[in-house]
Amino acid sequence: MTAHYDLKSKTIQELLNHRTIRAFKPDPIDESTRTTLYETANRAATSNGLQQFSMIRITDQTVRDALAQVSGQAYLATAPELVIFIVDLYRNQKIAEYKGASLAAGDTTDVFFQGFSDALIAAQALNAAAESLGLGTVYFGSILNDVERTIDILKLPMLTFPVVGLGFGVPDQMPALKPRLPLSERLFENTYERLELDLDALTTYDEEMSQYADLRNPSRRLDAFSEQVVTKLSHVNEKRQRLLEAVAKQGFRLHGNA
Amino acid sequence: MTAHYDLKSKTIQELLNHRTIRAFKPDPIDESTRTTLYETANRAATSNGLQQFSMIRITDQTVRDALAQVSGQAYLATAPELVIFIVDLYRNQKIAEYKGASLAAGDTTDVFFQGFSDALIAAQALNAAAESLGLGTVYFGSILNDVERTIDILKLPMLTFPVVGLGFGVPDQMPALKPRLPLSERLFENTYERLELDLDALTTYDEEMSQYADLRNPSRRLDAFSEQVVTKLSHVNEKRQRLLEAVAKQGFRLHGNA
Repeated sequence: MTAHYDLKSKTIQELLNHRTIRAFKPDPIDESTRTTLYETANRAATSNGLQQFSMIRITDQTVRDALAQVSGQAYLATAPELVIFIVDLYRNQKIAEYKGASLAAGDTTDVFFQGFSDALIAAQALNAAAESLGLGTVYFGSILNDVERTIDILKLPMLTFPVVGLGFGVPDQMPALKPRLPLSERLFENTYERLELDLDALTTYDEEMSQYADLRNPSRRLDAFSEQVVTKLSHVNEKRQRLLEAVAKQGFRLHGNA
Repeated sequence: MTAHYDLKSKTIQELLNHRTIRAFKPDPIDESTRTTLYETANRAATSNGLQQFSMIRITDQTVRDALAQVSGQAYLATAPELVIFIVDLYRNQKIAEYKGASLAAGDTTDVFFQGFSDALIAAQALNAAAESLGLGTVYFGSILNDVERTIDILKLPMLTFPVVGLGFGVPDQMPALKPRLPLSERLFENTYERLELDLDALTTYDEEMSQYADLRNPSRRLDAFSEQVVTKLSHVNEKRQRLLEAVAKQGFRLHGNA
């Protein structure tokens, strides 16, 4: 028997209405609300139960300004609530020390990726929770633009590493939903099926994207998606490309026998 | 003015009630429901708008069995719905080829991590959407236990890489909520504040964890968290630790000047 589901569940409607918000009203998020929101991140699924991420709320304007400089996004400094998610193997290392044990695997690439995954799953749990209260959200992948500087700003100890920032607050804008590739181009069955492009789907999508008015620059339309791909991936960001060097510098062992 | 929020939003209640489900009723998820669910993943935030992940639904029992063997988790083979999230820079590479352009940055570590992040954010959007319909969910990080084999099973082209699996369906069990570290140990302000353990908090948490009865083995209690840390991180999984080698083999350029 197939159950009948309410496809208009509030959560689903919220998720289907996700858009990035870049302008917020100044209203702060009260303590009780934000504690509940952060608890949703704490409760999210965690690899092997090891809870290898932590969160840093940024309330000090100096720290916000420094991070905004790394990110190049001024609205990072003014989002009412701002939290940075980090891989955290430092805590479990300290727990092991306290137990008098040394962890053979406490610094591996394997466990680094587990913590990295935990952090993103938790960030999206918090994102969904915030949106369910009518708050707007924005991810800041741009904290990795100069990750060594971000590590320095946040005074991150060894075996920790920044993953993503999340800003949220009462929205002061309502951008249109940005078109996405059709699901048929992103969801396959059993194997990777789409070895050749579906040019009709791409053309249609390119046209949709060209109709979208970006609030950041309403006077002009966006480029077609295929043109965005070419433009945005046309040069290597040398600083961002040194991410693994920074991971190694934080004490993680990147390779099998290193 | 601080707004008053309904802290019992349905979404928040669902997120705070998250538990991993490992036993499902055989009921399939109907097509309309699952399309809506996958659309929530498609709509989730994406780094730089580049949509660099894809999803592969696993319906073929042979493929499921092969992945279950990699994961070592038999219930992977029987979850009513099973989807693997992958980093996908292949699609944008094909789009660039079609446009007659070559992408200087289409194979970088930087962009790999963007796709990896996209995939996890999307997975958690789908997770929250599924839970909002009363479905149970389980993540399979274990598809990385032998990632080269997983790549082979899914016939993944160059510039794609598996991130995580997600199974879901009607739950046939209701485990107790697994205790989490208190938020005070995971949420800091402005900098990494918890350089020394809060031993009281840890002891309390260790006791809570020791009270938790795992349905996988109800006859015995779980180890204290601090003992789990020592046990679970006591040896390097050599195969999983070769993750970056597999990433490089899929055509990604891991380092700045490589």
